[in-house]
Amino acid sequence: MAREKRSIEEKSIWPDARQMLAKAERDGVETAWDRLEQQTPHCKFCELGTTCRNCVMGPCRISDKMKRGVCGADADVIVARNFGRFIAGGAAGHSDHGRDLVEVLEAIVEGATTDYQIRDEAKLIRIAGEVGVKTEGRAVMEIARDLLEVLYGDFGSRKKEVSFVCRVPAKRRAIWKQLGMTPRGVDREIAEMMHRTHMGCDNDAPNTLIHAARTALADGWAGSMIGTELSDVIFGTPTPKMAKVNLGVIRKDQVNILVHGHNPVVSEMIVAAAQDPALLARAKAAGATGINIAGLCCTGNEILARRGIPMAGNHLMTELAVVTGAVEAIVVDYQCIMPSLIPAAACYHTKFITTADKAKFTGAIHFSVHPETALAQAKEIVSIAVDGFSKRDPNRVEIPGEPVDIMTGFSNEAILAALGGSLAPLLDAVKAGKVRGFVGIVGCNNPKFQQDSCNVGLAKALIERDIMVLVTGCVTTAAGKAGLLMPEAISMAGPGLKAVCGSLGIPPVLHMGSCVDNSRIIQLCALIANELGVDISDLPVCASSPEWYSEKAAAIGLYAVACGIYTHLGLPPNILGSKVVTDLALNGLEGLVGASFVVEPDPLKAAELLDQRITGKRKALGLEGD
Amino acid sequence: MAREKRSIEEKSIWPDARQMLAKAERDGVETAWDRLEQQTPHCKFCELGTTCRNCVMGPCRISDKMKRGVCGADADVIVARNFGRFIAGGAAGHSDHGRDLVEVLEAIVEGATTDYQIRDEAKLIRIAGEVGVKTEGRAVMEIARDLLEVLYGDFGSRKKEVSFVCRVPAKRRAIWKQLGMTPRGVDREIAEMMHRTHMGCDNDAPNTLIHAARTALADGWAGSMIGTELSDVIFGTPTPKMAKVNLGVIRKDQVNILVHGHNPVVSEMIVAAAQDPALLARAKAAGATGINIAGLCCTGNEILARRGIPMAGNHLMTELAVVTGAVEAIVVDYQCIMPSLIPAAACYHTKFITTADKAKFTGAIHFSVHPETALAQAKEIVSIAVDGFSKRDPNRVEIPGEPVDIMTGFSNEAILAALGGSLAPLLDAVKAGKVRGFVGIVGCNNPKFQQDSCNVGLAKALIERDIMVLVTGCVTTAAGKAGLLMPEAISMAGPGLKAVCGSLGIPPVLHMGSCVDNSRIIQLCALIANELGVDISDLPVCASSPEWYSEKAAAIGLYAVACGIYTHLGLPPNILGSKVVTDLALNGLEGLVGASFVVEPDPLKAAELLDQRITGKRKALGLEGD
Repeated sequence: MAREKRSIEEKSIWPDARQMLAKAERDGVETAWDRLEQQTPHCKFCELGTTCRNCVMGPCRISDKMKRGVCGADADVIVARNFGRFIAGGAAGHSDHGRDLVEVLEAIVEGATTDYQIRDEAKLIRIAGEVGVKTEGRAVMEIARDLLEVLYGDFGSRKKEVSFVCRVPAKRRAIWKQLGMTPRGVDREIAEMMHRTHMGCDNDAPNTLIHAARTALADGWAGSMIGTELSDVIFGTPTPKMAKVNLGVIRKDQVNILVHGHNPVVSEMIVAAAQDPALLARAKAAGATGINIAGLCCTGNEILARRGIPMAGNHLMTELAVVTGAVEAIVVDYQCIMPSLIPAAACYHTKFITTADKAKFTGAIHFSVHPETALAQAKEIVSIAVDGFSKRDPNRVEIPGEPVDIMTGFSNEAILAALGGSLAPLLDAVKAGKVRGFVGIVGCNNPKFQQDSCNVGLAKALIERDIMVLVTGCVTTAAGKAGLLMPEAISMAGPGLKAVCGSLGIPPVLHMGSCVDNSRIIQLCALIANELGVDISDLPVCASSPEWYSEKAAAIGLYAVACGIYTHLGLPPNILGSKVVTDLALNGLEGLVGASFVVEPDPLKAAELLDQRITGKRKALGLEGD
Repeated sequence: MAREKRSIEEKSIWPDARQMLAKAERDGVETAWDRLEQQTPHCKFCELGTTCRNCVMGPCRISDKMKRGVCGADADVIVARNFGRFIAGGAAGHSDHGRDLVEVLEAIVEGATTDYQIRDEAKLIRIAGEVGVKTEGRAVMEIARDLLEVLYGDFGSRKKEVSFVCRVPAKRRAIWKQLGMTPRGVDREIAEMMHRTHMGCDNDAPNTLIHAARTALADGWAGSMIGTELSDVIFGTPTPKMAKVNLGVIRKDQVNILVHGHNPVVSEMIVAAAQDPALLARAKAAGATGINIAGLCCTGNEILARRGIPMAGNHLMTELAVVTGAVEAIVVDYQCIMPSLIPAAACYHTKFITTADKAKFTGAIHFSVHPETALAQAKEIVSIAVDGFSKRDPNRVEIPGEPVDIMTGFSNEAILAALGGSLAPLLDAVKAGKVRGFVGIVGCNNPKFQQDSCNVGLAKALIERDIMVLVTGCVTTAAGKAGLLMPEAISMAGPGLKAVCGSLGIPPVLHMGSCVDNSRIIQLCALIANELGVDISDLPVCASSPEWYSEKAAAIGLYAVACGIYTHLGLPPNILGSKVVTDLALNGLEGLVGASFVVEPDPLKAAELLDQRITGKRKALGLEGD
């Protein structure tokens, strides 16, 4: 059945989105919502996960009449294989991102670049020590050299476990070991996932899923975590600061450059280049009052959390940001960059500039940015945007609304600092029931949902119940636009959370960074579990991705579950064609790793489920009576 | 349109296959041909490569009405992404196989196993020297220790190029460097391929295909080549020997164990265990005259080439081997093992035994075989088969025909030895036009073709034209059953080839090993090119996979093309939905890497195309007039 055409109001909860959706219609710009209408109904076989294209004896699909593919694979095997590759795609994205940071660190250590420096030496030394590098009495660059060797090793085949598994509670490590789920090397697990899903390899769905979880754990405790930790080392660890969010951060009077993607390596240089006096002078000569950098998606989160750079929008706002007609350039690195941005940009004067050799877009201006030359290249990119300002058509410019204030920058280090250097005050609040628990709400937008309705609805419902919310990725923008990232949002919280956050001067919803920074959340869980001498699965902690869309989100969800964190999804992955896989995801994993997935599209019902889980965990810890 | 039901004769050219297909019908055993009928017609979208399931905004598919997926990806991007992942699956299979050999070598070096030894010390020392390990005056184990570190490094992220790129002609290396196609690390390229094909990364089809080629080259010059070279080191380098092929190698009077999959690590132990006096005594006590090991698929090729173990059959014979009713156990490692073998085995007394943790089959008996305990585990496995002999139902046993004699074991070392230690006699024959060129015919069976009709038809047509044929993988069995692997087959060859092979006492079709051993063929091409001071693309050499089915075959084809070898495929991969990708594969690659694919289902037309190509290359080298 074709999806009914939805009204603009049904597409998004946000005024800025609605205004731009109306303008997109007038300007003839196609959006993801339009294409979703075209693509609906989806192929049932693909949706159920029961199509296989892994060889050319097929393609095959499973139904009552065709119970097995040509090779003999049944629905369970096919669904498990497809899901395994889906997870491999997500883990590969985060991990290749992490490797890029190791390469930048290497360029710094080798003296091949001065555009990048080690900004947080203390963190470098601390994490080097954690992974066994000798630090006492050694020069920072020597420590860094050893650290990068250790971290390169996490992508290889020589280890029995990736380095940061040292942070995981012993009980959890024992579970992984027993299940064969301990991640050894991040590329290795990805390659093995691809091998296992080749025709005639792994033909036992649960065994395939165990390795999918191992692959996801390699993402969480290596690829993503390396990305987070080295970004902090190189660009500074986030600290609380104020910033602004929504399309209103785009400036009518300035040259607007939107940075989009996931990795801070290029966007940090764009931010630096935009302060170049010569470029500023050229911008002024062109009639602009300055050069305005704003973020989109996770690249936006990276520079938001570290520099307070304004955030223009999340996933479904990326096309709509172009529709303002006021964007001189979108500069992208990789991941979640809709290829539709090319034709959208072509409707205006907007230049679309790619910067990563592994993410070219047909029709884009490409810069092969490397650490050695990054700042100079960034200046060239900014100059293209400056030159574009005069080509902006004022009659086609429409920038909706006023930006909303947000507080950002809650790295684990910042949270500890806010608590006075120890987790004890927070744990006391948890024990006292003032903070009943934590839910990380993470992930994306998906046009199958009214944009951000679930992200915001769930966050609000949880803080009302004295459950503190941690956000990353696209949920940042959602929570920010809803006013939830301000200390004043305690007015929407339950009495306990209100008191705790009020006394600390923090919001009830904390922005912890980008999607790779979900590694901060699992690290925080590990810190708390270790402090209490329990496993992560014992904590009153849950995860949720109400409007997820990407393979990376699925990998994050799976590593959360494999860490012992009950995880809510707003819609299922394409696994429902297999009873074995679906049962394992929703139930069986509970017995194996102490947590499972739950799927619930309604945010209020989801809040109830998460609350029940947290209550159960509190009772088991003796923090609440029966 | 549904595929018409084919007669048994139309399904295979072989008497043994036809006899067993008839028995399978009687016994109620479903085969790949039956399932292909059920699965036909295939989904057109999947067949064209224009379905995308890489995120849950979809699944999407491209048609005239739906020109873009929800993210905006068009047919070119979607097809390129799917093909990239297809190649990654193939490269991962070979490469994870290669890594397993490195781990066995490590176990030997660490003294953790005595079941495995270094059998070809000279080869170990030679390849160690090639990749820069100091060898002079050092103990073999010390050299081996350094070599395994170098080879582990080929799976990592620290290299600019994998070790065996040192074997590639300088001109070819320059082409790869210029295109960004030099393989750096095998797992790295696989992970990057998965990253690039995540939503919103690589959205330029040619750029995606370049990386697919890089991934395939990592397979050819690292994953597969490491697999081949270390298998030779550990199990001995193949030398010419006589053996037998077809289902007739299954013995009515003996305990029959079929080894199936790709890796010799387990099957070598099964072969050894079958010679255990206690087990032989038990077999005799059970009424058997002995324990018969026969091979299937590439595991079969491995022990065929090294030990002369008989070969029961190729891909489409695996189910039919079970239908003989005389197989006590099928022992598998990984890849190309049809999951349908589980229900097929269950129709008889046959035990299905898995040995790799990464390739479990629901319903199988599983042994987690490790180098430390491999021989003892192999004995347990053989004992299960011996115990099964008494459960064989003689009334259901039917073993077709008489085995055919073959000559096997043509490693590059063996070819050089046959030539008296130098390539010169062979090159002289090529220059003189006696041997007009070489075609490697490799790959699989695919039930879309009459089994082996194209494999055999092409080989015969080529040797008639004085083109020497090199075979590996499933084409081995095809050529062998057709009598082409015997020196007597020169009677089917053209006059030049007949004279050359006759004087050397070798067949006109040489068996070079398993599918990973296609690395022998590219190495031979590199040796010849280096000898002549030209690029591989200058040689009168082609590749063909007439009946391919697997992702690994596609990866092999792509690395052949990227090496500069014109490559024929009997059917296309699922790329025809993209004009850009199809044009690049069939034409554009020629301008980039000096070779392209050609698709032709008819073996005689294919022979003509390959002949034309070879003639063209001969002319360009000045070996033939215009």
